[in-house]
Amino acid sequence: MEQIRAYFNNFLPLTDNEWEDFSSCFKKETYAKKEYLVRAGESCDFIAFIAEGVYRFYYLQEGEEKVTAFFFPGDFVTNYRSFLTGKPSEHFIETLKPSVIYKIHRQDLNLLYDRHKNIERLGRYIAENLYLTVAKRLDSFLHDNPENRNQELLNRNSKLLQEVPQYMLASYLGIKPETLSRIRARK
Amino acid sequence: MEQIRAYFNNFLPLTDNEWEDFSSCFKKETYAKKEYLVRAGESCDFIAFIAEGVYRFYYLQEGEEKVTAFFFPGDFVTNYRSFLTGKPSEHFIETLKPSVIYKIHRQDLNLLYDRHKNIERLGRYIAENLYLTVAKRLDSFLHDNPENRNQELLNRNSKLLQEVPQYMLASYLGIKPETLSRIRARK
Repeated sequence: MEQIRAYFNNFLPLTDNEWEDFSSCFKKETYAKKEYLVRAGESCDFIAFIAEGVYRFYYLQEGEEKVTAFFFPGDFVTNYRSFLTGKPSEHFIETLKPSVIYKIHRQDLNLLYDRHKNIERLGRYIAENLYLTVAKRLDSFLHDNPENRNQELLNRNSKLLQEVPQYMLASYLGIKPETLSRIRARK
Repeated sequence: MEQIRAYFNNFLPLTDNEWEDFSSCFKKETYAKKEYLVRAGESCDFIAFIAEGVYRFYYLQEGEEKVTAFFFPGDFVTNYRSFLTGKPSEHFIETLKPSVIYKIHRQDLNLLYDRHKNIERLGRYIAENLYLTVAKRLDSFLHDNPENRNQELLNRNSKLLQEVPQYMLASYLGIKPETLSRIRARK
């Protein structure tokens, strides 16, 4: 739980009282490898902090898996669109390794927003930050070549990335597995 | 100004007191056609509500203009990334018609956040909403064909869109002007 507090402190330090109320809303859960946190068609009414494990986002297009994101320890994982709108997720969120996460539900978070102006502000900072993340991803899709996108992913967590199957990485980069092997060999 | 209040009311109704403080921070400005609200390299420290006019976002890639967005009356326009981070904009924001806008600066908005919990919450709602907008655009780039993207743009404001030069629309859709003419002829 101290990891979560440290994460929030990057945005806005909370008082002990605020943190006590906040942290009591997080529930610990464990998942085995290849379990689903969310399936396509389900609504996602929580945000989860990853203490251990690796997750991937993917959707199915004509039966083919299209990987759109990876999440590592220290990241928050959710289908934020589904979380905000209540609409069903179009993505699967799946564990690639055994995982430990801390979940907070929408309803609890909204009550925290009502009770604490600082947590309301934290919610704004996090929404603004997620905006920047997705805007950067849009830019990366529009402008970056697969080499740059591969490097960016390696910068995030090159150790855990070694355990991700190559075909999933290639799908994320929008290239064939053979092309990814060539990129890696060149380094 | 009542247009702005109506826009905010979609998210969260403000009291007269909150609105009085908020609205006093907006400054009216007028622009001629082909003027710049923001140039690439400049930091964007404001958000502007469009009362009249049409704006486009574009950046230069090897001397070529790449159009990434259009904004119409009733929209807010800003380089939100630059607004949030203080970093220089990579985009130009240019008027395509004479325009009337209402600007609010970052500094004033932050003071409003401090003074009113409801405006702090409104800021979160708007950040969440902008997240959804940019996530939808990312999806549209990844999955939609130019026909769908053209239709989506027409749905937003087909009347004012008629005044936008065809080559800018084609750039936004990521296709050649000739291809856009063919799509339009088919309808």
